[in-house]
Amino acid sequence: MLKQMGVCAKEASRVLALQDGRARAQALTHMADALLKNEQAILVANAQDVANGQQAGLTSALIDRLTLTPQRVAGMADALRQVAALPDPVGLVQQRMTRPNGLRITRISAPMGVIAVIFEARPNVTADSAALCIKSGSAVILRGGKEAIQSNKAVVFALQEGLACAGLPQDCVQLVTDTTRQSAQELMCLKGYVDLLIPRGGRGLIQSVMENAQVPVLETGEGVCHIYVDKSADIDMATAIIDNAKTSRPSVCNAVECLLVHEELIDKLPALLAPVLAKGVEIRGDEMVCANIPQAVPAAPEDWGQEYLDLILAVRVVKDIDEAIAHITRYGTSHSEAIVADDTEAAGQFLAQVDAAAVYHNASTRFTDGGEFGFGAEIGISTQKLHARGPVGLEQLTTFRYLIHGEGQVRT
Amino acid sequence: MLKQMGVCAKEASRVLALQDGRARAQALTHMADALLKNEQAILVANAQDVANGQQAGLTSALIDRLTLTPQRVAGMADALRQVAALPDPVGLVQQRMTRPNGLRITRISAPMGVIAVIFEARPNVTADSAALCIKSGSAVILRGGKEAIQSNKAVVFALQEGLACAGLPQDCVQLVTDTTRQSAQELMCLKGYVDLLIPRGGRGLIQSVMENAQVPVLETGEGVCHIYVDKSADIDMATAIIDNAKTSRPSVCNAVECLLVHEELIDKLPALLAPVLAKGVEIRGDEMVCANIPQAVPAAPEDWGQEYLDLILAVRVVKDIDEAIAHITRYGTSHSEAIVADDTEAAGQFLAQVDAAAVYHNASTRFTDGGEFGFGAEIGISTQKLHARGPVGLEQLTTFRYLIHGEGQVRT
Repeated sequence: MLKQMGVCAKEASRVLALQDGRARAQALTHMADALLKNEQAILVANAQDVANGQQAGLTSALIDRLTLTPQRVAGMADALRQVAALPDPVGLVQQRMTRPNGLRITRISAPMGVIAVIFEARPNVTADSAALCIKSGSAVILRGGKEAIQSNKAVVFALQEGLACAGLPQDCVQLVTDTTRQSAQELMCLKGYVDLLIPRGGRGLIQSVMENAQVPVLETGEGVCHIYVDKSADIDMATAIIDNAKTSRPSVCNAVECLLVHEELIDKLPALLAPVLAKGVEIRGDEMVCANIPQAVPAAPEDWGQEYLDLILAVRVVKDIDEAIAHITRYGTSHSEAIVADDTEAAGQFLAQVDAAAVYHNASTRFTDGGEFGFGAEIGISTQKLHARGPVGLEQLTTFRYLIHGEGQVRT
Repeated sequence: MLKQMGVCAKEASRVLALQDGRARAQALTHMADALLKNEQAILVANAQDVANGQQAGLTSALIDRLTLTPQRVAGMADALRQVAALPDPVGLVQQRMTRPNGLRITRISAPMGVIAVIFEARPNVTADSAALCIKSGSAVILRGGKEAIQSNKAVVFALQEGLACAGLPQDCVQLVTDTTRQSAQELMCLKGYVDLLIPRGGRGLIQSVMENAQVPVLETGEGVCHIYVDKSADIDMATAIIDNAKTSRPSVCNAVECLLVHEELIDKLPALLAPVLAKGVEIRGDEMVCANIPQAVPAAPEDWGQEYLDLILAVRVVKDIDEAIAHITRYGTSHSEAIVADDTEAAGQFLAQVDAAAVYHNASTRFTDGGEFGFGAEIGISTQKLHARGPVGLEQLTTFRYLIHGEGQVRT
């Protein structure tokens, strides 16, 4: 069954690839209209998911993420319109070369083809993912979690109605309605049909995809982000950055999980941690930290490199910047790492030596985000090095082609 | 055991990433010197491989590819020097943005980290692959075939001697000396240590890697390339391009495997095929072709989409350019596709609608090659869409990092 979806997606992707940017943007507008037109049906379907979720004992946080309201449906439609308004990422000239033999080679951005997205509960991910794929000229196969299956069906029904209004194949957006593990497994192995697979979800999902996929994957997600406060740091600035990076949204991958403080700042620790302590953040510290912060509990070895996604912060005192970089090299996930320092030499060393998608000097790690980077929207944060690092926006959802013009050249 | 190699490679890659371009180029020069210095040992080891190969009944073509001579060793050293002289692909500014909040974001090219290469018989691949990885700032783990194991050991010994002379860790270049299937399998699953795996070899190897790898892979290789001769084509030009694309090196992936000819040119078929027929190319044609070319044999269904890598050419008559594009869409491998046409509209349609790494107008498919594209050297031809398409040169062996400078910005 999934193979048939692959065949249909491939076919639809070819039609989509022949549309110009304006036609793709118009399709998104039609899809937004269709979402609003189908609001009632979407809310009814969603109510069913919510009832099922409550019966199944989902936590209130999960129920909240699952629940749609007229406002949230309007938000989904708005997001589609915002993506429609972004610059067209397809057909951009990336490189031009004329070779000594006269061949003129042009490298231009091109649609990926068929993108598959495997995700978990939130139904807005369905519309967001579809929008980014259509805008970048690719067909998409969506496979959401069983918790949101009725909502996803209703949303995809609406999106397909929008595609039809725009005169595009409905198979540009398809939903896998079988939510068993088996269907995810099959999707990961649709060689020749899926050009790119993006998992969006927790660690278990990502790992399963990395281990089992036979199609190209963009790994997203895990962020064990550090902030190193250098001895030269402006303490007020460091305090504000730590507070923002830990507490503004602790559940996301660009939140800080571990703070490294230069030993000369040991007496500043209470000041650095005052705002987060006031907000109820649990501090798991090394000996030096525990000796100076009464509320701190001793960190266990597994606290280093831990992605809490919660109001918990591991804190360690380091003797110098080299020890800080060594800690990050060992425990980081190459997502986002920051130094707070007035000393530009220290900052330069940190930016040169830390290998991560985003390396910050005097700013919060929370900025690693497609919107904040000016990409307009994103489908996730890549933590691999192949193809894309950091926020995956429209540009990162495209590939390229070389177009070569000759006058009969042959190779000697 | 392989995990330990992964640990050492990661460690070495960190040291290598801190070197500037000049130091990496110098290391390659030392490695070239060391190859020449170790010429005798390399030839002795190679003679052992050749003797083993003859005993094992390898074909003379394989024996030829395996055999090293003083000239070929000198060629390997020259290739290292040529790579050394290429522009440094690391640390290039790819993008600069200043955000409304004042954050300054710079995207710069960066080493991939650890690259693994699994390849088959030819020992020169060992030195070539190592050179491209070191030049682009990455450590490399090489896993060659058992046929060349003694040669590979001797070559890697020399390369490591060169690294040591340059003051770099020898683990920047490591060889997996266990040539069982098990070692390849382990290498494909070295998650957290291998940032990129590149298979270089035949279809069986590539498929096995695609199916089993748990680390990011760059798929290379299979090329079912087509040439479509439009009714507007200059027949002399088309004839020369067909000859070049088929016979200049039939065993490589950018050689043409299938010719599509517009039906209005049916009487030109003998002229179009005269040079390849004279060179002994077997023509497997459809009915129209067989009716017009006495030497042609009827094509079986499996001839369409077949990668012969030999002096065989499938030939089909199509009724128009749409049928040609549909054939390529169905049977091509998105490698290299060409149209020969004087009609610029037909050429434009072909270039717009054919989805391949390289799409040619009036030139031979044989130009899909790192050297011919001006990349200086390549590690293979990518047939996937993620990260790199077409020739994989130094640029394609790098990733990037975002460096972000702020003045205490936090996210609201």
